[in-house]
Amino acid sequence: MKKRYLLPLLLLPLLANAQTASIDRVNPTNWWVGMKNPNVQLIVHGPGAGTLAYTVNYPGVKLVKTSTVENPNYAFLDLTIAPTAKPGRVPLVGKKGTQTVTQSWEIKARDNSPKGQGVTAADFIYLAMPDRFANGDPANDKFADMRDPNMDRANPFFRHGGDLAGAAQRIPYLKDLGVTAVWFTPVLENNQPLTNEGGTMRASYHGYGFTDQYNVDKRFGGNAAYKSYVQQAHAAGLKVVQDAVYNHVGNTHWFVQDLPMKSWLHQWPSYTNTTYRYNPITDPHAAQIDRKITLDGWFVPFLPDLNQQNSYVANYLIENAIWCVENFGVDAWRVDTYLYNDQPFMNRCNAALLAEYPRIHLFGESAVTNSIDQAYYTRSKIDFPFKSNQPGALDFVLEGAMLAGLKDVGTPAVAGWNGGAQHVYQSLAQDVVYQDPTKLVTFLDNHDHNRFLSEVGDDLDKYKMGLTWLLTTRGIPSMYYGTEILMKNFKDPTDAEVRKDFPGGWAGDKENKFAAAGRSARENEAFDFVKKLATYRRDHKVLHTGKLMQYLPENGLYVYFRYDATGTVLVASNTTDKAASLPTARFSERMAGFNKARNVLTGESLNSLATLQLPAKTAVVLELLK
Amino acid sequence: MKKRYLLPLLLLPLLANAQTASIDRVNPTNWWVGMKNPNVQLIVHGPGAGTLAYTVNYPGVKLVKTSTVENPNYAFLDLTIAPTAKPGRVPLVGKKGTQTVTQSWEIKARDNSPKGQGVTAADFIYLAMPDRFANGDPANDKFADMRDPNMDRANPFFRHGGDLAGAAQRIPYLKDLGVTAVWFTPVLENNQPLTNEGGTMRASYHGYGFTDQYNVDKRFGGNAAYKSYVQQAHAAGLKVVQDAVYNHVGNTHWFVQDLPMKSWLHQWPSYTNTTYRYNPITDPHAAQIDRKITLDGWFVPFLPDLNQQNSYVANYLIENAIWCVENFGVDAWRVDTYLYNDQPFMNRCNAALLAEYPRIHLFGESAVTNSIDQAYYTRSKIDFPFKSNQPGALDFVLEGAMLAGLKDVGTPAVAGWNGGAQHVYQSLAQDVVYQDPTKLVTFLDNHDHNRFLSEVGDDLDKYKMGLTWLLTTRGIPSMYYGTEILMKNFKDPTDAEVRKDFPGGWAGDKENKFAAAGRSARENEAFDFVKKLATYRRDHKVLHTGKLMQYLPENGLYVYFRYDATGTVLVASNTTDKAASLPTARFSERMAGFNKARNVLTGESLNSLATLQLPAKTAVVLELLK
Repeated sequence: MKKRYLLPLLLLPLLANAQTASIDRVNPTNWWVGMKNPNVQLIVHGPGAGTLAYTVNYPGVKLVKTSTVENPNYAFLDLTIAPTAKPGRVPLVGKKGTQTVTQSWEIKARDNSPKGQGVTAADFIYLAMPDRFANGDPANDKFADMRDPNMDRANPFFRHGGDLAGAAQRIPYLKDLGVTAVWFTPVLENNQPLTNEGGTMRASYHGYGFTDQYNVDKRFGGNAAYKSYVQQAHAAGLKVVQDAVYNHVGNTHWFVQDLPMKSWLHQWPSYTNTTYRYNPITDPHAAQIDRKITLDGWFVPFLPDLNQQNSYVANYLIENAIWCVENFGVDAWRVDTYLYNDQPFMNRCNAALLAEYPRIHLFGESAVTNSIDQAYYTRSKIDFPFKSNQPGALDFVLEGAMLAGLKDVGTPAVAGWNGGAQHVYQSLAQDVVYQDPTKLVTFLDNHDHNRFLSEVGDDLDKYKMGLTWLLTTRGIPSMYYGTEILMKNFKDPTDAEVRKDFPGGWAGDKENKFAAAGRSARENEAFDFVKKLATYRRDHKVLHTGKLMQYLPENGLYVYFRYDATGTVLVASNTTDKAASLPTARFSERMAGFNKARNVLTGESLNSLATLQLPAKTAVVLELLK
Repeated sequence: MKKRYLLPLLLLPLLANAQTASIDRVNPTNWWVGMKNPNVQLIVHGPGAGTLAYTVNYPGVKLVKTSTVENPNYAFLDLTIAPTAKPGRVPLVGKKGTQTVTQSWEIKARDNSPKGQGVTAADFIYLAMPDRFANGDPANDKFADMRDPNMDRANPFFRHGGDLAGAAQRIPYLKDLGVTAVWFTPVLENNQPLTNEGGTMRASYHGYGFTDQYNVDKRFGGNAAYKSYVQQAHAAGLKVVQDAVYNHVGNTHWFVQDLPMKSWLHQWPSYTNTTYRYNPITDPHAAQIDRKITLDGWFVPFLPDLNQQNSYVANYLIENAIWCVENFGVDAWRVDTYLYNDQPFMNRCNAALLAEYPRIHLFGESAVTNSIDQAYYTRSKIDFPFKSNQPGALDFVLEGAMLAGLKDVGTPAVAGWNGGAQHVYQSLAQDVVYQDPTKLVTFLDNHDHNRFLSEVGDDLDKYKMGLTWLLTTRGIPSMYYGTEILMKNFKDPTDAEVRKDFPGGWAGDKENKFAAAGRSARENEAFDFVKKLATYRRDHKVLHTGKLMQYLPENGLYVYFRYDATGTVLVASNTTDKAASLPTARFSERMAGFNKARNVLTGESLNSLATLQLPAKTAVVLELLK
């Protein structure tokens, strides 16, 4: 990257003074009056934009400071917006000699539509990829003026045309399923080329290579479609989670193409990839170089790594986050590659969002395999030298434990010392390291992993047990799109295998699995199972905020309870391949006073609780009654 | 146990008043003037001892309180001993009607011989089983008046006759090997019968079933031999670690045979074994019953579980611990089955020992497999609801990691994401949870595990690499007896397989592996290897208190440093089956300024450090030079 971005910077100042300056972009594209934090830093870009002397003459708006940097095409304007300022168009006036450039920039009134509502353990999040879920507007499938101008559903790397209009049409489908929140993989513009590097396809249909954080990708419908989606979702009682990417951007991002300064990115003498190793970050014995490579090494060659220790970069990212919440009204914030970010920056960013939106939930992706490292990236009870303020996190540790446990189901391993449900039990037993484990977002798979059904060998019993755990244990459950209709696959040879189109999302699809009639009997069995549990969960507070009590698994039987003043739910998982009778005397701490129950999944009534009959490979969910 | 011990208690009070009372035992058997804590609680036992009214008339000794309990054969006397009291025999006078019983009980002057010196990372601990190490006094091999009156070296469960006199004769051997501290499995009396319960032999040669905590087992030589051993060890510069057992005692212990009160032991309606599961102790979601079974369930049926929440039991155990240190002069305290003890009791006990002996080291056995649970039992950086004050702990997590790593050596697994040295690297990377990981006692095996050499497939390369890690990484290394002469075995069918006699420890042994001439060439290679490293470690402060810096293993090569102002030692492990060249530019953070080195194991000089040549399956130890 050095050659490409650094050398031109040295020449630019010499050239710039002679030029006529102009402004082609101001970010944030607007701001609001009445934010808790009255300050905003504008990045002003254009040929020679950094050679202008700026003034702002607008009641209540004060230009506190203008900063210039290595590249004369940039100026950074620190503004303060008084709560008394009137919404309107603020003229940013830049002068150089006899030249005057005036750029109009808007401050808006805040609306009182819902935003930053947060997601909690009362929610059930549905994760979808906009390009692969449903196509509502074929007119936006491709654009000749974009770097990847194609669309081809037959090619896994090409754009498939899914969009926010299509997703909006499926809001009733999700409501019916019992979903209460939607998380899309990133919707912001990814105007990246589709490349083939030595046989490795570099695509951006997934959305993780931003090229402009102030525009939703027009293939998804642009800003208007996103705003409309959020409004429709809110109207239907669904929350919306935005997928944020702070660590890197696409290599065709406008500011990468004209880098403000060398330190905007993590620069290396020669290309250096991250090791993807998280240990050096928490290891008290680590070498600085190992930490640096993990954090500052690039994720992949085409995703330049942002230097968040550069305060201009940090301000840019933080303001964009606030802008997205305020502008689109999203409720929660999923943060990509959380552990690769500068953690002090993450804390600043989280704090800024929480200051404006106290109920917003923030949960990052830190793909670790142990609870200590997972705790590092959330509010924890470990006295790390660095203390994260992140309220939540994606619970990769529990995902691994649930999959490992389910793989053992029906095998002799379930009776082993650490087999079967022991994985789950032992994982949850380590919750002592978190300040609040109920704020972790739980999952069985996602867009980067093998699909859950394939992980459990296409076994519907294991599938149901896993979803039962997901929907009844502690945490905020999330489910990857298509799980409910038994979509399956392994991610080999490429991730695209687990990102197939939802059948029925495109006009003319042979099958429409959004409708019961389009689903096979087995698919309907799965759909109805998820719906029954999700609906029960949605309607029963005890599964949101009730405490968890788990018992040591014995003989392959794993029993836990959710309980509060409103009720007690017993979940008994028989992970063996034989039906079992389970005396309940051992569970008296939670069952005392109850003598009847309703089987939540079958509707069956139990008139005695002394011994439970547990079918093989089945998790039974009982609402205890007096 | 209820039938056996509880019912007689109900009848005893009725019978006792009619009887003539007498005293047959007072514990502690003596105390000292000038202890930091002036208080001591005596347990006075004898027929009707609890029916006597006690007085103490001795200058500086005050009887503060007499307590009686369910069993009238016990009285508990709380005494205060002023620092001004004169050493001598204190008469304890008990009266009942016309009867007067006088029991003489001694308070001694403290001597100033070394005691409670502690063990630190400057030490190298040798763990031996007194019955299996060396027999110095054939006259004490067996006693007709003991419950197990036999001795038979051909039978793995019988006593073999090893003793402290034999161990004392081998002090020069250990000194020569580079050992600086000796830890014996418990030496206190185990006057337990040898039983065969349905084919399961219950033996006590290992020492973990005390029957009298104030007598060293006379088959080891009794109190005099132990005191003499400690004096000889100290004279030779060796420290002594005592193995303490608080959780349980033998079922023929004198106070179990005449239980002071029902709550002296953990009582259950029917026999209840511990689950040996540690998760319920730290799990915030655990059921009380699971915690209780782990902690209060018995370890095995013949080892009654002491109730340390009973203050009389707690006082008894704590005073015995102090008595052992003061009387025998031991330096450190290894605590058996640490996690099964009542943890508030353990904190009280640790605090009491540390108050009297501020330098003493305490390290318990908590056989867990993850760093969170290991941290729970030592001074940690996790905000557990209970905070342990234990300074050290046996590092079971690192043991598991080293064995897993070594098993992969020479296989393709060493290059895998989590294979080979990654186990060790990742384990040490979690040291962030400990307040001071250098106080953990490290090991490769012990008397309860498969012997190290067998664990690594009798592979001398892996053996050397493991010992190199043990002797150069952080912590206080300990080694199980016989490791240096390549003793091996798996613990199946019984633990006795890994507790064989040290050849040469008995007069008339065919082989004497205490002497170079009695060892095979391979055994001498091993012995010399341990000796070379242990001696180097002993003489180089950097391996005691120097910091550890470890680098991410790459391509099966694992590099770490110990460093301080006195020097830098580089340890480079090639875990692959091929020789490797390792450029060192990556390690400049630790190697800058050094340009030469001495190979500690071969004596070879290196005049360039740019690239290291690493033989296959070898750990190279380099002392860096300028």
